[in-house]
Amino acid sequence: MSGNTFGKLFRVTTFGESHGVGLGGVIDGCPAGITIDRSLIKHDLLKRKATTALHSTTRFEDDEPEIISGIFEGRSTGSPIAFFIRNRDQDTKSYVDLKNKYRPGHGDFSWDMKYKHFDYRGGGRYSARETAARVVAGAIAKQFIMHEGATVKAWVSGIGGVNIEGYGPFLRSDIEDSHLLCPDKEATMKMQERIKDAADSGDTLGGVISATISGIDAGLGEPVFDKIEAELAKAMMSIPSVKAFAIGEGFNAANMLGSEHSDNFTLCDDGEITMKTNSAGGTLGGISTGNNINFKVGFKPVSSTKSIKQSVTKKGEPAIIDLTAGRHDVCVLPRAVVVVEAMAAIVIADMTLRNRSARL
Amino acid sequence: MSGNTFGKLFRVTTFGESHGVGLGGVIDGCPAGITIDRSLIKHDLLKRKATTALHSTTRFEDDEPEIISGIFEGRSTGSPIAFFIRNRDQDTKSYVDLKNKYRPGHGDFSWDMKYKHFDYRGGGRYSARETAARVVAGAIAKQFIMHEGATVKAWVSGIGGVNIEGYGPFLRSDIEDSHLLCPDKEATMKMQERIKDAADSGDTLGGVISATISGIDAGLGEPVFDKIEAELAKAMMSIPSVKAFAIGEGFNAANMLGSEHSDNFTLCDDGEITMKTNSAGGTLGGISTGNNINFKVGFKPVSSTKSIKQSVTKKGEPAIIDLTAGRHDVCVLPRAVVVVEAMAAIVIADMTLRNRSARL
Amino acid sequence: MSGNTFGKLFRVTTFGESHGVGLGGVIDGCPAGITIDRSLIKHDLLKRKATTALHSTTRFEDDEPEIISGIFEGRSTGSPIAFFIRNRDQDTKSYVDLKNKYRPGHGDFSWDMKYKHFDYRGGGRYSARETAARVVAGAIAKQFIMHEGATVKAWVSGIGGVNIEGYGPFLRSDIEDSHLLCPDKEATMKMQERIKDAADSGDTLGGVISATISGIDAGLGEPVFDKIEAELAKAMMSIPSVKAFAIGEGFNAANMLGSEHSDNFTLCDDGEITMKTNSAGGTLGGISTGNNINFKVGFKPVSSTKSIKQSVTKKGEPAIIDLTAGRHDVCVLPRAVVVVEAMAAIVIADMTLRNRSARL
Amino acid sequence: MSGNTFGKLFRVTTFGESHGVGLGGVIDGCPAGITIDRSLIKHDLLKRKATTALHSTTRFEDDEPEIISGIFEGRSTGSPIAFFIRNRDQDTKSYVDLKNKYRPGHGDFSWDMKYKHFDYRGGGRYSARETAARVVAGAIAKQFIMHEGATVKAWVSGIGGVNIEGYGPFLRSDIEDSHLLCPDKEATMKMQERIKDAADSGDTLGGVISATISGIDAGLGEPVFDKIEAELAKAMMSIPSVKAFAIGEGFNAANMLGSEHSDNFTLCDDGEITMKTNSAGGTLGGISTGNNINFKVGFKPVSSTKSIKQSVTKKGEPAIIDLTAGRHDVCVLPRAVVVVEAMAAIVIADMTLRNRSARL
Repeated sequence: MSGNTFGKLFRVTTFGESHGVGLGGVIDGCPAGITIDRSLIKHDLLKRKATTALHSTTRFEDDEPEIISGIFEGRSTGSPIAFFIRNRDQDTKSYVDLKNKYRPGHGDFSWDMKYKHFDYRGGGRYSARETAARVVAGAIAKQFIMHEGATVKAWVSGIGGVNIEGYGPFLRSDIEDSHLLCPDKEATMKMQERIKDAADSGDTLGGVISATISGIDAGLGEPVFDKIEAELAKAMMSIPSVKAFAIGEGFNAANMLGSEHSDNFTLCDDGEITMKTNSAGGTLGGISTGNNINFKVGFKPVSSTKSIKQSVTKKGEPAIIDLTAGRHDVCVLPRAVVVVEAMAAIVIADMTLRNRSARL
Repeated sequence: MSGNTFGKLFRVTTFGESHGVGLGGVIDGCPAGITIDRSLIKHDLLKRKATTALHSTTRFEDDEPEIISGIFEGRSTGSPIAFFIRNRDQDTKSYVDLKNKYRPGHGDFSWDMKYKHFDYRGGGRYSARETAARVVAGAIAKQFIMHEGATVKAWVSGIGGVNIEGYGPFLRSDIEDSHLLCPDKEATMKMQERIKDAADSGDTLGGVISATISGIDAGLGEPVFDKIEAELAKAMMSIPSVKAFAIGEGFNAANMLGSEHSDNFTLCDDGEITMKTNSAGGTLGGISTGNNINFKVGFKPVSSTKSIKQSVTKKGEPAIIDLTAGRHDVCVLPRAVVVVEAMAAIVIADMTLRNRSARL
Repeated sequence: MSGNTFGKLFRVTTFGESHGVGLGGVIDGCPAGITIDRSLIKHDLLKRKATTALHSTTRFEDDEPEIISGIFEGRSTGSPIAFFIRNRDQDTKSYVDLKNKYRPGHGDFSWDMKYKHFDYRGGGRYSARETAARVVAGAIAKQFIMHEGATVKAWVSGIGGVNIEGYGPFLRSDIEDSHLLCPDKEATMKMQERIKDAADSGDTLGGVISATISGIDAGLGEPVFDKIEAELAKAMMSIPSVKAFAIGEGFNAANMLGSEHSDNFTLCDDGEITMKTNSAGGTLGGISTGNNINFKVGFKPVSSTKSIKQSVTKKGEPAIIDLTAGRHDVCVLPRAVVVVEAMAAIVIADMTLRNRSARL
Repeated sequence: MSGNTFGKLFRVTTFGESHGVGLGGVIDGCPAGITIDRSLIKHDLLKRKATTALHSTTRFEDDEPEIISGIFEGRSTGSPIAFFIRNRDQDTKSYVDLKNKYRPGHGDFSWDMKYKHFDYRGGGRYSARETAARVVAGAIAKQFIMHEGATVKAWVSGIGGVNIEGYGPFLRSDIEDSHLLCPDKEATMKMQERIKDAADSGDTLGGVISATISGIDAGLGEPVFDKIEAELAKAMMSIPSVKAFAIGEGFNAANMLGSEHSDNFTLCDDGEITMKTNSAGGTLGGISTGNNINFKVGFKPVSSTKSIKQSVTKKGEPAIIDLTAGRHDVCVLPRAVVVVEAMAAIVIADMTLRNRSARL
């Protein structure tokens, strides 16, 4: 049973390969009546592509998506919203050499074991290019959850060992002022140095993206299995290169005392119930409390370093993979920020609809 | 839309509350023909309950589950396997005091916001007691995946700041020799000290459980969303108190260079393709490679410390919660080991069936 | 992938076999806050069992279901509602003879082909006894949809060739006054004669059940695939012995002119939009119009006639099946009325929740 | 929760509106390795459009679908197969008049009640044009199930009261020799007369399509809810204008004696178990027996007759709908034959994959 659909009620299906005709997606379950601003979709797609030219690939497709269905006179109709981005810059020649070889760190080997026949060109379906479809769906999800008062904000909190802790709050303007989407200026500079060093040695870097979802109501999450942190974890771990997920204090919590970790309830001046701390990261018993949901996501370094690697062929013979000439990112973290936001927005959209059935 | 079912083809639904009639589950999708050894179910249920009497609650129900359906003459029939564990030791009096108060760190508040009406006694549905049903389902899943050659092994790798790194391999006997289910003797002793200290001060501890799934074929996992690491992350994050998940190098990977992290392919003497390192934790492109799947899970400390806490009532008035007399675990990590194993086994059972549709 | 769950948001899973420990079900997704009257559950279970002693089997189990979870202080909590009916009168001896033979018209052969190993006793999982679990779930669904103003009413409209046409309206009292649950007195008498004749000759009868769902809002149904008539058709065709489904004019519509079939819109005195005719049976474009939903369901005759039949063994040898002494219904139609109602109520409960996501 | 996806493992999602940018679909779960012959897709699309020019609309789009993903070097890859058909002949002017009026028999009213905002042009999403996407998906499903030996054959068995009984077998050549896709020459002529009469009086006709699925293995179907006849019923009832479904003897079975209806097992000369009759229509206990699956589907007459109708506006005022000049089919039955085949093939593809999990 294939797994190209995410969500239960706000259901996003993506399709398409890196070097095929194109890629796209279908959202089934977007409620009718939402005004869809296409410029916000475009904004997020741009954000997915742009960092400095130096450290990113130069493959900048014109990723304007065509909306095929489900939006009429500027508003969602309740019918499936399908969209399509045609591939343009398809240099498949550079991949012919890789046809029969397994690249370390990529899906070549495991996909071959599973499907025996698949589109290997440019990583095909497991190329990070697939995330463009997630970003479009996420930009629409954002416009739905905005109606509920919720917003998602992600930023780079670590690259190559330079890390900033905590969940701020950070200003969106401080994040976007940094070409690395890191709200801390000093950290940005250090990260930039690490990127330069890695680039100079043909190496690559990983990092951490942190995010805050604010403005959501208490009550989102469907225990015992579809807890909000469980859905977020799945969403994030489905992003290419992600190796770890943490909510609130995350692995730090494992080292804390119960008395330290506890978020105590108190009353605001207006009598509303609140918590002054947020170790839990906005969820109790798998359900949102109304506090900000704070989480972070760890990315492995880019697998394709500029080097010559020993590998094997499909037939089980030694082979050499020469990636010294390829164009690859040194670090994808800044480009992945909007992907993290998109997946988070899709989770919140889905959980918002699911919560509509909780009570009579 | 409620979320009490886990899995797509091997589908586990749990039901029941901590202090109601009982709890249980239904597995729909267990293939016909599997010999079910009930003693293995009992073994895992015992493992979920027992650590030293000192550091665990003394509420030891006779948790012998009744198998209601789906097993005939000792083998699964392909029909739903339902099982039921009747609650016996139901001391609900101690919870009456909590009826109108929100305990910090528990689901009281968020569940009340969501459902307005729910069974609050003893944590009701969000009590960790619900995991007994997962353990039964997991014990059956283990017997299915055993046929495919797969086994799951989990252990305590951290309590209260005492941590052991890596994925061993550790012997199951070394794990089970430790009453804390930690395969390192020295670490066990230190952990025990931390537990004693915490107990003495009425405090509680969190920790880390690590696990290895071995013997699985390459090919499990359903990208792009239902990647094997995404399903595992969801499964683990759905366990009560879990705050973080990592596969392979996890958050460490964020600080590594691409050249360090890379698992290169090589050939065994018999010509089979293999990798000598396993930074990835057994998955590439969301699909298992045949390498061991290594992951770890971070638990927050137990929320109920022996103390008097300031809190609020449902009506928004200040309230005092006195837990000095309750019986609660100082640290649940050893008891959660088999829950981690159960959820992992359920994921592998599900992904094994899902993979049957990958190819013609 | 097994199929023991019905519904997407109001999700009913049944389990259990005819001659095993017992049977039951789990409803996941019943909204919190519904007052559950257990006497209505009992009423429907009785209705499923009772017709005249002569024409029904004498196996009257005490089918009082135990509610295990999900209801607290008389109201649903939003957590799974599990229930269990223990089997008592388990005469498995009469089935031992059938262990290795395939009975015509029963699932023995096809289940053996599919599962190779299954519980054959008394029809096991494909026994009509499984419908007791549907009736319990349906009785709860009825109490949910009652809050939305909807009611389901089914009746016997045909037995053994005696048929009454149309959808009345018939009074519930007229239906229940008839021991065959047929609202027409004359037809009831004729049907009774047919039943007597069939009983005398050791034969069996089929028939038709018709139903009306009234009081539902316009807007239920999720095209293009999960149209309300499509979900009802699936629900009804999943009931044992059902061979046909029709909505509104059904197969008659195939012979009508467009000008005859058309339900024209008009205005009530109060300005509300209505239709004076209801050829469509309450649905347009797969969505309810607010008109009554009228449908009917065709049942084949009971497969086990009192006779000696030529059949085959599992090993492919000729065999004789002697059912002259067994106790079997001559006609199950009256007992199936409440099963039809139950499945219809489950569909409406599910579609009601699904419709909550249609609009912003 | 929207319902634009059909199937659990072989999952077809359709999108698009009659007069928007276009329509298409995504198949997620098509196994890798199937050789896809595009000419078979084209053949089925043509079959959906063409009958005589006289009795069909003249809106013949060039419905060549673009395959966007999931097929590489002529074979399926296991990734989602997306396809797109661009709308060309979009005469939306004729629909402007209908913007604020509810046409009898169409979804205008019910969709407006549900979504409040939707694309009304030309029936939008509830236009029968949507079935073009089903036909493409069905043509791919046919190529998968062909590998398992299964074929689907449908034909017109009734138009306007002229009906042919039974399931033949009929030759595909006899079916396709008839421009009405009815295998009986005499019936074809009579049907043609009825169509002419209806056309002359500006009226429309409904009818019946019958179908046989042959070559399938025993074992398909997932009781207790996802019986093969239940899935087929849902599939058929989801086709626009369908009002009834019957398997095997269907509603006739309701009037038969048990002794008449019974399909007895016997042995072939080669010792294989078989049944000489097929009243059941190829299924017992919800699972295929290996016999042909025979079913029929009843269609209401086309709703848009060439006439002036009294109706109402959205605002609840009387209105006149003048359809005397529109171009509409008198009878859609011949065009729907391939849609019935497509949905049946999708069901069999899905059930074939689902059956892969039945046993160890």
